[in-house]
Amino acid sequence: MTQTETNKSPKTAGVIYTPAELLEHWQGHRRVTRRMIEVFPEDKLFTYSIGGMRAFSELVLEFIGMAHPGVTGVRTGEWKSMKFAHEGVPSKPTTKAELLSLWDETTEKINREWKETADERFIENDIAFGQWKGPVYSFVQYWIDNEIHHRGQGYVYLRSLNIEPPAFYDRS
Amino acid sequence: MTQTETNKSPKTAGVIYTPAELLEHWQGHRRVTRRMIEVFPEDKLFTYSIGGMRAFSELVLEFIGMAHPGVTGVRTGEWKSMKFAHEGVPSKPTTKAELLSLWDETTEKINREWKETADERFIENDIAFGQWKGPVYSFVQYWIDNEIHHRGQGYVYLRSLNIEPPAFYDRS
Repeated sequence: MTQTETNKSPKTAGVIYTPAELLEHWQGHRRVTRRMIEVFPEDKLFTYSIGGMRAFSELVLEFIGMAHPGVTGVRTGEWKSMKFAHEGVPSKPTTKAELLSLWDETTEKINREWKETADERFIENDIAFGQWKGPVYSFVQYWIDNEIHHRGQGYVYLRSLNIEPPAFYDRS
Repeated sequence: MTQTETNKSPKTAGVIYTPAELLEHWQGHRRVTRRMIEVFPEDKLFTYSIGGMRAFSELVLEFIGMAHPGVTGVRTGEWKSMKFAHEGVPSKPTTKAELLSLWDETTEKINREWKETADERFIENDIAFGQWKGPVYSFVQYWIDNEIHHRGQGYVYLRSLNIEPPAFYDRS
């Protein structure tokens, strides 16, 4: 291993995650969420609710609304809220196919921006979307946790519809 | 900062989490889960279900059943499944007070064992409970994610009972 490589990924005692591992952790969870979208019946995806909670499509749009502009904030420090009919997204998705297409576009955007993000950026302090203070990695962790949390809600929707959800532990 | 301190917490570019930060992340989520237990009506905690899913108390016992013996595995490499009426736990909790008491005991056990765990242990490879292969930190991450996931299920139970759940973002 060259010195440069060592600096880029200093996996020594006391280090849990490198940026590359955080990305893989996120994308692993995002693959589970994508399978959730796929398994939802088209109509239920946009309408089904328990206890007055949001439809699963609305939760998915929240994940996308954090991740899509969020990775640009991670890379650049510029935090813009997502507006549909902007940022290359023609309009708010209203079908499963449109939602999956925006999902996949977001997946690629995350990978692309991550590659262009300096390692030291992740431990800089910033204020995400003008609201949340902390080191940059903590925003990403929040988006992941928020996705797991609301996706868990989707598991109940599916079970109550007698539909087997994808395995939580399978991140492939 | 002395050299020793620097080695213990090498927060340099490319490092996301140190063991101390991973612990705080976990305990922050565990504080939210504890508030969920508190807000559940006693009878519903042990019986309420949607879609044939487990009662929230059963999910909480799963979290405890991973964390309680798990932190010993993290520290020592010995992975023993939790048996109630063992490990200082007299029996499986059947009331909210007993469940909270076991929760708090687990909280202290986690903090105690974490302190005694060598930093380099977190990046060692192991097989948790004879089943899951990976670096030790990945087991802890899995337990946290699993707790967020199933707790999200509990949020739907509470909302469907017209009970306001604790704020997801408040980890204090």
